[in-house]
Amino acid sequence: MLVKLNDNYKNLTESYLFSETGRRVREYAAAHPDKKVIKLSIGDVTRPLSPAVVKALHKAADEMGDASTFRGYPPEYGYDFLREKISEHYSKIGKGADVKPSEIFVSDGAKSDLGNFVDVLGDNLVLIPDPVYPVYVDSNIMSGHKISLIPSTPENNFAPTPDYISDDAKGQPAVIYLCSPNNPTGAVYTYDELTKWVDYAIETGSLIIFDSAYEAYISGDLPHTIYEIKNAEKCAVEICSFSKSSGFTGTRCGWTVVPDEIETDGVKLNKYWARRQATKFNGVSYPVQRAAEAALSDEGWRESMESVEYYMGNAKLIADVLTEKGIYFTGGTSSPYIWLKVPGGMDSWSFFDYLLNELQIAGTPGAGFGKFGEGFFRLTSFGTREATMEACERMREKL
Amino acid sequence: MLVKLNDNYKNLTESYLFSETGRRVREYAAAHPDKKVIKLSIGDVTRPLSPAVVKALHKAADEMGDASTFRGYPPEYGYDFLREKISEHYSKIGKGADVKPSEIFVSDGAKSDLGNFVDVLGDNLVLIPDPVYPVYVDSNIMSGHKISLIPSTPENNFAPTPDYISDDAKGQPAVIYLCSPNNPTGAVYTYDELTKWVDYAIETGSLIIFDSAYEAYISGDLPHTIYEIKNAEKCAVEICSFSKSSGFTGTRCGWTVVPDEIETDGVKLNKYWARRQATKFNGVSYPVQRAAEAALSDEGWRESMESVEYYMGNAKLIADVLTEKGIYFTGGTSSPYIWLKVPGGMDSWSFFDYLLNELQIAGTPGAGFGKFGEGFFRLTSFGTREATMEACERMREKL
Repeated sequence: MLVKLNDNYKNLTESYLFSETGRRVREYAAAHPDKKVIKLSIGDVTRPLSPAVVKALHKAADEMGDASTFRGYPPEYGYDFLREKISEHYSKIGKGADVKPSEIFVSDGAKSDLGNFVDVLGDNLVLIPDPVYPVYVDSNIMSGHKISLIPSTPENNFAPTPDYISDDAKGQPAVIYLCSPNNPTGAVYTYDELTKWVDYAIETGSLIIFDSAYEAYISGDLPHTIYEIKNAEKCAVEICSFSKSSGFTGTRCGWTVVPDEIETDGVKLNKYWARRQATKFNGVSYPVQRAAEAALSDEGWRESMESVEYYMGNAKLIADVLTEKGIYFTGGTSSPYIWLKVPGGMDSWSFFDYLLNELQIAGTPGAGFGKFGEGFFRLTSFGTREATMEACERMREKL
Repeated sequence: MLVKLNDNYKNLTESYLFSETGRRVREYAAAHPDKKVIKLSIGDVTRPLSPAVVKALHKAADEMGDASTFRGYPPEYGYDFLREKISEHYSKIGKGADVKPSEIFVSDGAKSDLGNFVDVLGDNLVLIPDPVYPVYVDSNIMSGHKISLIPSTPENNFAPTPDYISDDAKGQPAVIYLCSPNNPTGAVYTYDELTKWVDYAIETGSLIIFDSAYEAYISGDLPHTIYEIKNAEKCAVEICSFSKSSGFTGTRCGWTVVPDEIETDGVKLNKYWARRQATKFNGVSYPVQRAAEAALSDEGWRESMESVEYYMGNAKLIADVLTEKGIYFTGGTSSPYIWLKVPGGMDSWSFFDYLLNELQIAGTPGAGFGKFGEGFFRLTSFGTREATMEACERMREKL
């Protein structure tokens, strides 16, 4: 074929992280059938959909099977019943956050929106904290954009402020990706830190793309949405999901907020995103939208929070062991992830092998999330209580 | 904001087609409350999901509510159970078509894949027949690609062959969009015509993107898939959907076939699409994939074909009236769409007004599908039998 491909794809690095960790775990298990390996490496939820959500799926399935209640093409930006429910949700979780239904675009998940958002943007400088969820970097490499990494380190508690932007990138208009609570570090921005980012974006004419997929895990006086911060509606898009709050990783629903006020040269960003979605997307499955609506009902959200509390109970067990051992970590209090400094000066892959061979615990090496992730390690709280307790006992005895 | 937007969006034309036809119908109905307007303008299915599909949705909903059968993140390219079922489906519908499960990428619908496929391609010449489904043109305008339109006219029965490519575009490597059965013209490529396209693509090093969303409506000895044509696996991607075959417009599932053999400079197109989907997509909802699997079961497909036959019964009624009246049209035999030449030398919007005011029938003006659509008009068979029969009586008496 003589048709040209997108050459930017040649600049992508292959990620062997999860295939390589998986391979090592399988080989260990095969060689040691008597040993029980506990996976604290799971980035996916394990608890089932809640009864309110399952009930909504059944009801919608019946509606779709009856000519009088059947639904064809959904609205491209989501049904009003769901956009309104998400708008209400913002007024509950965020102090003073005011997100209108018309600013909310329902999608099949945060990953799609995070990946697709580059479509509506030009060739801008892109700022991305490292270590990080790989979609931000990869989708910008695919578009050939210049990326400047912001080091997330113990010095800034893995929650870097604009002070950590490199000198050659500082002060310029940029597209800035922030994730709070962070995957993989579990760090959560405070009101002060997030205000610094919004102020910086306003000053420099930048756009923040704020990934709040883990918002439901926050406890204490921390911002649940960037729209709690003054002026965020002038400079920030927020992308969120039902995946981690309500166990929708396999059900697929998320949303993106593009405020009315954001514009360049009189063109509303909102309008471009609307046009992108109307052209390249056909809306979310009706049963899934009804399920998402149910997840935000009083009953559904209470049930969702029971799962979140269950996972956070696991996180506390892990955090307590690390505290006892004097190991530095972030996360674990407002995040399902625990990001620890590898003890004994090992690199993160050596620690992976050590934990697997000596304690029969699988985790994830920090180097897999970016160059500043080296020397760190991710454990997750998405397992069962029993398995997590056993893993903690092993760490308590042997680490 | 100083962040640059994608300036190519400025080159998009606003499509007022369906909002404008909708407005005129509403105004007419409000002014004439005694008249019953029949909509032969519906591009969406109206019959409910079949019992086999609804049953699968219920079963999957229960599985998602039980920890022992819960499913988290789906595989990015679709569950094996569905990829295998689609592969089998090809062996049933296409003479000699051999599509491997690994070449099939399950998605939330054909529109997403048609829109997103530009991501993996470079800046190529793009050939698009006109009139046409607007997504091909708009997604390429968004990427700033050069488009050459191929006139679809009565001269080529709305099924243009490479002979109709303009002189300045002919012979060059290009990305070629084909849709058969066609939306909006209802024209279906024959084996000979489609062979000409595949031969042309091989000769010029071009890539065909073949939209087969209406495949299930084909009757007679016509190709159901481009992979019935020799060498298509070297030059053609095929995008299909459950929307029109099994009533999934509101349930959302489709797929794209990217054959292993297609490559440029030793890089497989397949691999780039896989990387695109793994980065910017997170797979299709588990209940939806189970529903799609059920739609391809013997029982589910038989039920689907009952709906297709119902719609095609409507199409025959409309086609018979047009034949009686001596009005030229395409479609209506292997397509739910009927594309007719506006009688009496009217333009397509005038005919819209005439049909609405005099016969109380709503259709769609051809000009809305591209400049070569002027002078033509689309009627659809997606209404109820009763309404279609009444519309036909009105046309028989008054047209």
